[in-house]
Amino acid sequence: MTTTPSLTGSSWILGAPTEPLGAPRFRARAAADGRELAVDFHAASERDVGLAADGARGAFAATTFDVRARLLERVAELLAARGAAIVERAMLETGLARPRLEGELARTTNQLRTFAALVREGSWVDVAIDHGDLARAPLPKPDVRSMLVPLGPVAVFGASNFPLAFSVAGGDTASALASGCPVVVKGHPLHPGTGELAARAIVDAVAECELAPGTFAFLQAGGAREVAVGLELVRHPAIAAVGFTGSSAAGTTLTREAALRARPIPVFAEMGSTNPVFLLPGAVREKRDAIVSALSASIAGSAGQLCTRPGIVGFVRGHASDALVERLAQALGASAPQTMLSSAHRDAWHERIERLQRLERVQRLGAATASTAAGVTPVLLRTDLATLEEAPELAEECFGPSALLVECANEDELVDLAQQAGGTLTVTIWSAASDRAFLSWALPLLARDSGRIVHDGVPTGVEVCAAMVHSGPFPACSRPDSTSVGARAIRRWCRPMAFQNVPDELLPDELREANPRGITRLVDGKWRA
Amino acid sequence: MTTTPSLTGSSWILGAPTEPLGAPRFRARAAADGRELAVDFHAASERDVGLAADGARGAFAATTFDVRARLLERVAELLAARGAAIVERAMLETGLARPRLEGELARTTNQLRTFAALVREGSWVDVAIDHGDLARAPLPKPDVRSMLVPLGPVAVFGASNFPLAFSVAGGDTASALASGCPVVVKGHPLHPGTGELAARAIVDAVAECELAPGTFAFLQAGGAREVAVGLELVRHPAIAAVGFTGSSAAGTTLTREAALRARPIPVFAEMGSTNPVFLLPGAVREKRDAIVSALSASIAGSAGQLCTRPGIVGFVRGHASDALVERLAQALGASAPQTMLSSAHRDAWHERIERLQRLERVQRLGAATASTAAGVTPVLLRTDLATLEEAPELAEECFGPSALLVECANEDELVDLAQQAGGTLTVTIWSAASDRAFLSWALPLLARDSGRIVHDGVPTGVEVCAAMVHSGPFPACSRPDSTSVGARAIRRWCRPMAFQNVPDELLPDELREANPRGITRLVDGKWRA
Repeated sequence: MTTTPSLTGSSWILGAPTEPLGAPRFRARAAADGRELAVDFHAASERDVGLAADGARGAFAATTFDVRARLLERVAELLAARGAAIVERAMLETGLARPRLEGELARTTNQLRTFAALVREGSWVDVAIDHGDLARAPLPKPDVRSMLVPLGPVAVFGASNFPLAFSVAGGDTASALASGCPVVVKGHPLHPGTGELAARAIVDAVAECELAPGTFAFLQAGGAREVAVGLELVRHPAIAAVGFTGSSAAGTTLTREAALRARPIPVFAEMGSTNPVFLLPGAVREKRDAIVSALSASIAGSAGQLCTRPGIVGFVRGHASDALVERLAQALGASAPQTMLSSAHRDAWHERIERLQRLERVQRLGAATASTAAGVTPVLLRTDLATLEEAPELAEECFGPSALLVECANEDELVDLAQQAGGTLTVTIWSAASDRAFLSWALPLLARDSGRIVHDGVPTGVEVCAAMVHSGPFPACSRPDSTSVGARAIRRWCRPMAFQNVPDELLPDELREANPRGITRLVDGKWRA
Repeated sequence: MTTTPSLTGSSWILGAPTEPLGAPRFRARAAADGRELAVDFHAASERDVGLAADGARGAFAATTFDVRARLLERVAELLAARGAAIVERAMLETGLARPRLEGELARTTNQLRTFAALVREGSWVDVAIDHGDLARAPLPKPDVRSMLVPLGPVAVFGASNFPLAFSVAGGDTASALASGCPVVVKGHPLHPGTGELAARAIVDAVAECELAPGTFAFLQAGGAREVAVGLELVRHPAIAAVGFTGSSAAGTTLTREAALRARPIPVFAEMGSTNPVFLLPGAVREKRDAIVSALSASIAGSAGQLCTRPGIVGFVRGHASDALVERLAQALGASAPQTMLSSAHRDAWHERIERLQRLERVQRLGAATASTAAGVTPVLLRTDLATLEEAPELAEECFGPSALLVECANEDELVDLAQQAGGTLTVTIWSAASDRAFLSWALPLLARDSGRIVHDGVPTGVEVCAAMVHSGPFPACSRPDSTSVGARAIRRWCRPMAFQNVPDELLPDELREANPRGITRLVDGKWRA
């Protein structure tokens, strides 16, 4: 099962490829030059969507933590074994460079293994136990125990810019399968081949682990059916929750659809962000080279197509700032041209830059042309706070290798800039010792509408770890109380359930008095291992 | 400040009563006989709603855990000190009996003190720390730390049936203030006087604790403004989250309003439930008296106006069941008449019972008249599973002292009945040793769409403890991933926030390396105190 299967172009439902009879066909295009790539893809029909969702409902049953962990580990093994072919196809479809995609594949298998370890260890189910007291007056105190249980079938919408780590076998799928929820993935039309290869790894692992074939399904969605497949999936009664990474427009549409269902369901939509960076005066003077080096790489990397790319850089007017801006423009100007995910992405970014640079008091630094046959090169725009406040579109995400420098008259204006930026995934602050007095009061204000504060670093490169928060207030995310990266991501697919005076032998192992799984639990108010 | 203040009839905003000039007036009515009670109440205007919400936004600032705890404790002290007058007014407005309201007041002050203890202890902020590793290749591992932070101003909608514990100073308000969120309460029009007395305790405590006066506001909402005040509050840009306890219709309306805002916000709506009870054959034979005693008290208590009242009771056909049903009807028939919350509640319940008992194959047991001048007496209806499946309205909540007995042909039909009941707050199971073989496979199916399983007991009387879950799949609750009772209730008003490579002296105390607050934290994957 480790030789890479060839592409069928089909959706995968109940462990098998769908019959392509009469389905609208579409093709992937090479990101680099727009040429059509081999293999016809067949968009899922409404019936396919129903079969996948009903199949997921049928497969929703208690599975042991060990089986779930083995499934995730096996997916990771198959992805790694088939990695060369997957990376090759992803390079064609997305235009992302080999090292980036190899890194992303490693991140993807690491995520799968991390969730496998989490689910196997078991404490993530968040057990609380309050022992009863029959002697309590006026009423006996009941024995109450609770833990997280899975919600049901999860629909996953992958992102165009992370064809592996935030797509078919990405963090949403890994965390949902870990939680015990079946998954139906709506494939992204820009990487249908990469999607099918990743889906095959999961389909094969489900079969090898002898799980119900409805545990995972993959729906091709492209051409005339691109939007419909997603809407039908979110509207299907069997779907219990949705994970989404992508644009604000699509995320908002899905979130509203889900809220208007007869039975509303949650949508965890991660929709991007301007990720403001605040360069405090002391840091500008003392850490210029580090800032220029880190920031230019973070703006230009992956052709700027990262939801955590720094989009707004605030600084205080002054000689040191002028020198830093000059260096930053030089560093970015020296970047090699890169391919964007698609001509549509490139054109949208290009038009946006053209529109912004025509605004009054918005200045473009460096080269006049950002987009050539060889690809795109980074763009730096510069303005001041007053201009940004008058033209709110300057504070909206601009998806590509660009950033907007915002000159502020003083430190207090940096705080005003933070308010303008609205809800963001991240806020980054560079400071030196001389900035501490300001930061000690301003830090909570600078970071108030953000999910993560980064100090003396860059927001790109989201570490997969228990403490990570990849989320933020709207419009960055539809559910700022959650995170799509890190151990807490598994909780999105769960709800707490209580057991009151239930006999020990009828309790799930996690709740039994003897703690046979040896997990950490909150017992009568104390954490106990 | 502990003498009970007299009623002004006003809303309370920024620590002061509003001027009633021109506001639409309304009066409370005595639940027992419908007569108008003294004191004109003045409904909040749209301007009042804005002042309260903006005031809450202005008051949203970092407060220490100790200050929050003192606030909650002081509210509890003032409520207790003024308890006699509060209970007196609540008896008039709601018709609930003195012992029930005295119990509810004790529950309310207990909740406030429980959240005070929780917030003071501090571990509830759910700290995760992953230490960095500069030597890691290819990239250094950052130091990432995260904890829960408050969302912002919370709007609270109190319930008619719990004028104290789920209203102005109830669990939603207590948990939101504990989390650090300011609160704006929309008062319930059926107990405006009780509401104002409870609000005064919070207003006075806010002043005594020297918190910003915008920390708490209370809006009178009655007469022509009853619905508008709530909608304006949910639509106000300053409001960040909503807590609601009440009807399915109102909860669904608010949830959709909140989802359609420019910046969507979460609504935690607890909307009631049929709370099915499954009497397994062994239990029916061996535990008849205990079942009859517990179930009759649970159905009739508080005139059946509890969201956890057992509404559907499933059992397997047989002699023992017939005897149990007969005893249950006798026990309920002996209940004294009770006053319902309002004539509207009584009429709605009465009409519903009349409609259901006219359905074919629905039989009414015992007395023919449930509603007299002296009050209402409990009603038992009886049908079978096939009838319930054909008439889904039988499986909808019926708010009052009644229950529907559903005869099943065998144990498997009990599982079918569970599916019909849909999302519920609770599922109750009575079993004996001879039922264990069935339960060992059926328990997960019986409880699948429920937030809490109760064994050999009753669902009413929701214990306030860390492990409690008062929630459930839709339509019981809009957010089954949360709970409105128990320690986890505080998480509703929070989101996680990460700090990456932030210098120790700039971190909140909860995240500092030395753990100065001594809280339990997840450090590098291990729980540490």
